[in-house]
Amino acid sequence: MKLYDFQMAPNPRRARIFLAEKGLEIETVQIDMMKGEQLSDDYRKVNPRCTIPSLELDDGTILTENTAIADYLEAFAPDPPLMGRNEVERALVVEWNAIVERDGIGSLADAFRNANPAFADRATVGPANYAQIPELAERGRQRATAFFQALDQRLAGREFLAVDDFSLADITALVAVDFAKMARVEVSESHENLHGWHTRVSARPSAQA
Amino acid sequence: MKLYDFQMAPNPRRARIFLAEKGLEIETVQIDMMKGEQLSDDYRKVNPRCTIPSLELDDGTILTENTAIADYLEAFAPDPPLMGRNEVERALVVEWNAIVERDGIGSLADAFRNANPAFADRATVGPANYAQIPELAERGRQRATAFFQALDQRLAGREFLAVDDFSLADITALVAVDFAKMARVEVSESHENLHGWHTRVSARPSAQA
Repeated sequence: MKLYDFQMAPNPRRARIFLAEKGLEIETVQIDMMKGEQLSDDYRKVNPRCTIPSLELDDGTILTENTAIADYLEAFAPDPPLMGRNEVERALVVEWNAIVERDGIGSLADAFRNANPAFADRATVGPANYAQIPELAERGRQRATAFFQALDQRLAGREFLAVDDFSLADITALVAVDFAKMARVEVSESHENLHGWHTRVSARPSAQA
Repeated sequence: MKLYDFQMAPNPRRARIFLAEKGLEIETVQIDMMKGEQLSDDYRKVNPRCTIPSLELDDGTILTENTAIADYLEAFAPDPPLMGRNEVERALVVEWNAIVERDGIGSLADAFRNANPAFADRATVGPANYAQIPELAERGRQRATAFFQALDQRLAGREFLAVDDFSLADITALVAVDFAKMARVEVSESHENLHGWHTRVSARPSAQA
């Protein structure tokens, strides 16, 4: 397997942490988004949607969505389980991962890419150029702030987000919280459950991936 | 099991088609979004994020994301498989479902909710009110148009979207194409692969669900 990666971006970090939790070390290729390499002809042959990460399987299949990458790796290396221990737990992991992806990472991406001068005319991922929409950056900040409040409520009395064990949903939420700084969204100090959980998951060796 | 549903909305239709393909008939409760019932105190107890569908399992667990609902139902009723026949196929179904959800349904939702007068100040799903952003409606139309072109290319020479069999990804894409009319996004007549596939999947009895 081979991972197309960019060290500084939030979405490939999700795949790196998942791999690290599984104890898998695979070949990695850096695609430098600061130089626009995700838009190069070479990378378009890997992933015409120009997003990172992409995981190339040994049979040549290429997966470009974190949810698909996690689904495959969970089957490839079942231990330790990162998507629950039975069908209901698994569904809860998929549920919370999806919520964090849309309400958390999606909102933060709206806030970040529609405001940061480095992304002028690059307000969405992918091959096409779109102008920034300042009102969408503001909506993204508001939605992300509401998301962190909901996350704090969910984490009351819980060690991890979706199920009793650390899971894919925790990985996505960790990346969301760390993305907030880049997106200039404050995670309120009053969110004690959230900050306690963030300290716990950040102490795991995989968080350095 | 019990499905909280609204007959006219695209996202609950995804769950209904999945259930129909599995031959599962379960109790259904209509939550009338035209009357704002998704924001009622009663429904907030089911799903505080106020989205539809929600699936209540017999143990009381509630799933509110289509991906989680499908994941659970695929384990609950494995035949016929709607998420592939092996690990790689399954990952491809998850991959294409995610692409269609974000690039297709997400773009169309941006186009629809930020332009339709009935959604003034209700430009996103969920409990909070957000003003419409006309520029985002336009971006949504452009992104949806690009998505349909990519979908047409993917379907060249293929019977179904993700794998050789009809899958969850076809369900989501069918709902996206049918949502385009509501969102006033034209699916170009030139997309012959897409229209051929749409005719095939629309002829399945489940498409009436």
